Amino acid sequence: MAGEMMAAEIAEQPAVLARLLRNGSSATAQITTVLRNRAPRFVLFAARGTSDQAALYGKYLVEVQLALPCGMVSPSTFTTYHARPDLRDVLVVAVSQSGGSPDLVGTVEAARTLGATTLVVTNTADSDLARAAELHLDVTAGAEKAVTATKSYSAELLGLWLLVQSWRDAGTDPAAGLPDAVAGHLGRHPEVATLADRYRFADRMLITGRGFAYPTAGEAALKLMETCYLAAQAFSGADLLHGPVAMIDQNHPTIAIIPNGAAGRAMTPVLAQLAANGADLLLLGGDECADVGTVSYRLPTLPEDLSPIADIVPLQLLALEMALSRGHDPDAPRGLAKVTRTH
Amino acid sequence: MAGEMMAAEIAEQPAVLARLLRNGSSATAQITTVLRNRAPRFVLFAARGTSDQAALYGKYLVEVQLALPCGMVSPSTFTTYHARPDLRDVLVVAVSQSGGSPDLVGTVEAARTLGATTLVVTNTADSDLARAAELHLDVTAGAEKAVTATKSYSAELLGLWLLVQSWRDAGTDPAAGLPDAVAGHLGRHPEVATLADRYRFADRMLITGRGFAYPTAGEAALKLMETCYLAAQAFSGADLLHGPVAMIDQNHPTIAIIPNGAAGRAMTPVLAQLAANGADLLLLGGDECADVGTVSYRLPTLPEDLSPIADIVPLQLLALEMALSRGHDPDAPRGLAKVTRTH
Repeated sequence: MAGEMMAAEIAEQPAVLARLLRNGSSATAQITTVLRNRAPRFVLFAARGTSDQAALYGKYLVEVQLALPCGMVSPSTFTTYHARPDLRDVLVVAVSQSGGSPDLVGTVEAARTLGATTLVVTNTADSDLARAAELHLDVTAGAEKAVTATKSYSAELLGLWLLVQSWRDAGTDPAAGLPDAVAGHLGRHPEVATLADRYRFADRMLITGRGFAYPTAGEAALKLMETCYLAAQAFSGADLLHGPVAMIDQNHPTIAIIPNGAAGRAMTPVLAQLAANGADLLLLGGDECADVGTVSYRLPTLPEDLSPIADIVPLQLLALEMALSRGHDPDAPRGLAKVTRTH
Repeated sequence: MAGEMMAAEIAEQPAVLARLLRNGSSATAQITTVLRNRAPRFVLFAARGTSDQAALYGKYLVEVQLALPCGMVSPSTFTTYHARPDLRDVLVVAVSQSGGSPDLVGTVEAARTLGATTLVVTNTADSDLARAAELHLDVTAGAEKAVTATKSYSAELLGLWLLVQSWRDAGTDPAAGLPDAVAGHLGRHPEVATLADRYRFADRMLITGRGFAYPTAGEAALKLMETCYLAAQAFSGADLLHGPVAMIDQNHPTIAIIPNGAAGRAMTPVLAQLAANGADLLLLGGDECADVGTVSYRLPTLPEDLSPIADIVPLQLLALEMALSRGHDPDAPRGLAKVTRTH
């Protein structure tokens, strides 16, 4: 049945997150012992696709919670241009579900010889990427069979969050409610299906969020591109105002993701501009946004840094429902394989 | 007349680039004296909109030619989350045409107090941003009146290129032919107008390039979003294969930018996948790609790192022509002001 695997893997997420919460701490403690000893001064993430959105979430954690400068590697600088930067005092973190893309393996191998501390966050412990790095965090989401990544994404986010909490010596209690929050979203599948109906004939969509919610926008866009072949675009709220907002009008759908928190409050001018453009807006928002938007989906209150781990779930369901209504099989999008090998 | 200012500013580019080539070296020499003395170990760029694409070009230059690890700042980490990272040994480069966006000013001010060396690359010497930084490079493109940035973009690219050549003690002779190369594109305006006709009724477009050509794809997408309200999406060739390629088919236009060079050669598997998806492809390419694509536009041979400064010009003309045929005024896109103030 079309979408069967994606649906099952979305539904697995409460169990996946609960397992990682139970068992992840010993792995992260071992890793952070090494990291504290090395005391890296800069962090670089390397990732592709869905894991690139997880890496962007990791970048916000590193910048905001660890107060370390952080960037995203362009793997082509290593693999195409053969750059050999001085990476002493740098932590390079590769994030990948499969651990199989040669450009990431090449980046980690090069980074290691150039003096970096290397860490791989992956769902496939037995992979070339995991073997290439000095340190390895297995997010233990279990085999992911649908080409469209879902449970590996939320597990990567939680894995990165647990790692950063361990590194900064903060507790993980705030995450205890996550599995229930995700289960709560799963219980609202019919509400999402109704929303999906509105977009049956949409050919493009714009999704915005800011700060910790920006990766959620990016991952939602990627799901919609992969499963519905929709031209789905994600922008941070600030970037949106620097140009792309011009294309927003009443006749193309817009989604804003505004959980409670500082970044949500910083979206106020963005919402004002969307209203001025007459945007048809689906607002996934916290209590502060109850009356905004053409249609809305209320997000439960979670700590802002944890919210992305749950907030993606209704958007995964949205992509699933929209794909099925269009007759596409989200388990096997055209032209994609589970492991993409780029160089 | 609609688009008059944008057309005039596109046409000014040979003169703007020639002026910067003549006069820029003394400014970059002064800056690099300071930079060599500080010997930063990590570079962070901060920018929005079109200048964010210029910053991405700068990131490739820094990674490939200076062999320094490099990242892009998320300004919200400073302005929304009030992160205070340790930025000693870090060079923070803000790129902005107007020098007016408060989040960039706030980022540079914060970075300076946190120990970073700060450099601003701007077209507005008398700006809050220029005053906030320790070092300042004026790209001297002259007042830009169209809301849609064109000449300030190519000038920012050349300014960054000149700076990096000075820093690594390389000559600037390879750029001598740039003004003529740009003039060559301007002389082919009718060829671009014919191409624009094919896209009269397109509502979305996907643009891809890799390495140094990736910022060109991003900036072209931004021009099309701003002037034509098109859902234009840019992906690096490698990122494209990790998901978004699923949405490419015969009935939505795709553009690939493949100048001569290493990244162009790395696009071979991307072109194969586009062909497999039956993509309707406009190929802007060098000699190696003569027979690829549904339609094509031949790019003159330039050094790969300089090619982006000229390659954007036919895409600026494409956006201009497409906007005019749709009855939009690209000098004043809806909902945009020349100086966007985000926080």
